[in-house]
Amino acid sequence: MNLFRVSRFINSTFPLISSLRAMSSTSGNKLRLGVCQINVGKDKNENIINARRALQQACDGGAQLVMLPECWNSPYSTASFPVYAEPVPEVGSSVDPETSPSAYMIIQSAKETGMWIVGGSVPERETSRDGVQKLFNTCIVVNPQGNVVAKHRKVHLFDIDVPGRITFKESDSLTAGNTVTVVDSPWGGIGIGICYDIRFPELAIIMRQKGANMLLYPGAFNMVTGPAHWELLQRGRAVDNQCFVATCSPARNNIPGEYVAWGHSSIVNPWGEVIQKAAESQDVIFADLDLNETATMRQNIPCWQQKRTDLYMTSCPR
Amino acid sequence: MNLFRVSRFINSTFPLISSLRAMSSTSGNKLRLGVCQINVGKDKNENIINARRALQQACDGGAQLVMLPECWNSPYSTASFPVYAEPVPEVGSSVDPETSPSAYMIIQSAKETGMWIVGGSVPERETSRDGVQKLFNTCIVVNPQGNVVAKHRKVHLFDIDVPGRITFKESDSLTAGNTVTVVDSPWGGIGIGICYDIRFPELAIIMRQKGANMLLYPGAFNMVTGPAHWELLQRGRAVDNQCFVATCSPARNNIPGEYVAWGHSSIVNPWGEVIQKAAESQDVIFADLDLNETATMRQNIPCWQQKRTDLYMTSCPR
Repeated sequence: MNLFRVSRFINSTFPLISSLRAMSSTSGNKLRLGVCQINVGKDKNENIINARRALQQACDGGAQLVMLPECWNSPYSTASFPVYAEPVPEVGSSVDPETSPSAYMIIQSAKETGMWIVGGSVPERETSRDGVQKLFNTCIVVNPQGNVVAKHRKVHLFDIDVPGRITFKESDSLTAGNTVTVVDSPWGGIGIGICYDIRFPELAIIMRQKGANMLLYPGAFNMVTGPAHWELLQRGRAVDNQCFVATCSPARNNIPGEYVAWGHSSIVNPWGEVIQKAAESQDVIFADLDLNETATMRQNIPCWQQKRTDLYMTSCPR
Repeated sequence: MNLFRVSRFINSTFPLISSLRAMSSTSGNKLRLGVCQINVGKDKNENIINARRALQQACDGGAQLVMLPECWNSPYSTASFPVYAEPVPEVGSSVDPETSPSAYMIIQSAKETGMWIVGGSVPERETSRDGVQKLFNTCIVVNPQGNVVAKHRKVHLFDIDVPGRITFKESDSLTAGNTVTVVDSPWGGIGIGICYDIRFPELAIIMRQKGANMLLYPGAFNMVTGPAHWELLQRGRAVDNQCFVATCSPARNNIPGEYVAWGHSSIVNPWGEVIQKAAESQDVIFADLDLNETATMRQNIPCWQQKRTDLYMTSCPR
């Protein structure tokens, strides 16, 4: 049974062979982006198998760059994070399949499919030399050679309290990262944020400053902030920074007592238009991105040259 | 003939006397905001009469704070700016009715109605001691005593070129202002931006930093960027900064060869919901704002305390 409904956007019989993919990926201005909105359950091994299947589906659909959701190998709860956490390799280092099966799967999949993979996020365990353990919410980006080319640890932890509706405190178990992540790719800079990171316009501005023309946010908004802010934030970041923006959520899971993700993974163009959006259930969506759109919008509305940095620097009370 | 269709949002027979208005305006947490989307034509005197009538209409509808559109006394064109420009009084200074009839009308209207008036904008002429003239796109804020309490000169000039669709270059005739404007009012800080200023997230962030819980933007988006970005930018600024956001546009004018404003003046709450919106034609819209909503959202989603200023400072390549 095919678990994935491939979007009508793409002809599922689209023929693509590795050499063609390699040729097109070096052209630089156009790419097919795939976003894997997958089910996430309690069985870690099953989650890994499911994610791998989705990545293959994305490859079959012609994706050259693909994204997994936030926290795709574990239920999203502060209690689960330490149980499902694993070491995540640093940039340029190799992976131990035994201790890091999630990262290993991503690396293997990248090599086999020839895609660039933005590996969503998993709970990461880091153990210092003196045995102190810390947990992070971490995304790796892997190139088609299987090299880890970037590692982003969520920098804004999700601590909110909307009484009677949604209360969550990631900082109960997680530590925040300390770096802004923009990856060099055949299509230019790709900025990476994780979920709550998207609420902070400063981060997106800095990613654009550092060369991003695409911002990718694995995320798992909930049933309160999802309908209110998920799409709005993506479209806002796209227009403010004249970037493509895409998000990848887990599929909606209506198990009582579990965190319920909003779903609706989306792809937005620099003009702020949603060009592809998943529903709630498991799905792989695709869009063909033309980076000339980014260049054109930046030329037509040159707000980056019109910033009043002089004024911002002297006016900010901090 | 009543030129204004008062929105169904408000009972037009709402009884309000000055003493009641004064009492409520000192309560601090609730206010009725009025937004005057007015026709703007080539006859400056008629524009002033029309604006005055709209302000009276807002008063009759119970507004305690009211806003006029961008460039309400002049057609919106670089050729018109020098012709319609007038001196605009500084904060705390008096006005000459002969040379500054637009500012004079606002001041008189504030005193007569007891409202706070955010005076949209007009082309301002400033003549230096050595006779050099400069033009600005300028908003004054006037309190019910008729004092000019703030003066904002548009800080981001509107220079865009979307070939074949919209090309405009304010900097052909205007000079940009150099200050961020947040006004102290009975309802807390009110941040003021003019039109294109809304495209710059940095300005809104600084206004929030300086105490704004409301951002008011007189503006005149066009038929290209209006449908694409006008509402999105307002909702984005509202959610990012957890502020009420309102805009005031001129009514749409379909005279060939003239700049065509999008209209659709709007009022947005801190959760990002559009709570009131005008259509294209002349109208006065109202909304009752409860500033407790701002406080609640800031408490529930405390992103201002969660900003990673440490990271932004060290990561920004500028």
